[in-house]
Amino acid sequence: MTVASPIYCFIAGPIGAWRITAIHAARGEALPAASHLDIVSSTIALRPHGASWMLRASTSNVRYSTRNEIAQLAESQPSLGRAEATKAALIPIRKSREWWDLAQDERRAIFEETSKHTRIGQDYLPSIARRLHHGRDLGEPFDFVTWFEFAPEHEARFDELVYRLRGTREWEYVEREVEVRLERG
Amino acid sequence: MTVASPIYCFIAGPIGAWRITAIHAARGEALPAASHLDIVSSTIALRPHGASWMLRASTSNVRYSTRNEIAQLAESQPSLGRAEATKAALIPIRKSREWWDLAQDERRAIFEETSKHTRIGQDYLPSIARRLHHGRDLGEPFDFVTWFEFAPEHEARFDELVYRLRGTREWEYVEREVEVRLERG
Repeated sequence: MTVASPIYCFIAGPIGAWRITAIHAARGEALPAASHLDIVSSTIALRPHGASWMLRASTSNVRYSTRNEIAQLAESQPSLGRAEATKAALIPIRKSREWWDLAQDERRAIFEETSKHTRIGQDYLPSIARRLHHGRDLGEPFDFVTWFEFAPEHEARFDELVYRLRGTREWEYVEREVEVRLERG
Repeated sequence: MTVASPIYCFIAGPIGAWRITAIHAARGEALPAASHLDIVSSTIALRPHGASWMLRASTSNVRYSTRNEIAQLAESQPSLGRAEATKAALIPIRKSREWWDLAQDERRAIFEETSKHTRIGQDYLPSIARRLHHGRDLGEPFDFVTWFEFAPEHEARFDELVYRLRGTREWEYVEREVEVRLERG
């Protein structure tokens, strides 16, 4: 029996396992301020009392990666929860209607053949762990929520990764992007 | 501003715009009996009082179709709600974990290059109107819910379409499939 994709809730409020150090809008509107973030792997339909905001998204299946790319990533991809990875970033993104109206081959061409999204990401392995979540089909305000974890000494590398991705042709279709930076505890 | 994919709720119970004439399991467990089906394009988190079952799914974006395939379909694809289309079918499907663990290129190869899913469907245009919905990322029991509408004289053609699809390699990955047949009113 298949287990459907787990849905994660990212809850910003007065409590949580991660302390929010900064929230800024890379494009479009930011998210409201909050001191902490909690991540729960269950479906919560309503925002908990006292929470500032909540994002819901599902890990789903791969949408563009080929078998070769998956195999290459698997070799060097670290898992979440490493003891040394005390820094994190949460990056919710919404792409434009123009992007979603493209055919699968057109989106794939921009994603990898033109923008080299996967190949850029590979340059930052195994320092930076990440998990991608999809929110669009859930009726959420963001299409994607990506969660990154890394050690403090790799923070500059993380900044570089984000900078390089924002310079790609794929990012021309991003109409809202928020960057939330965090520390454990 | 992007509008996220609309979520549709398929509610089986004592009332609804469509009368259920048969429910049978093509593979795996069936769905409980009910007399009517209502389709609402809004998010209802809880099953309405008195309903027998409810499925939720989102129209989402195309996952495999190329620009050429989309253009070909657009030429002959009828819309829902035609006056003569008084018969309908609702086919919820769940695919196996093995399917979802495949890479994008592997799923595309089975979907179209091997199974010719889109090309089979084209043989039944413009008689049969359809709308595909995705439920997997919503944590639903079915990955897909497809809604078909056709005139009574095309019912045998619809049966043939379903029969041909079930014979494809893609269908080896289907682990649950229910067929609900309906009439307007």
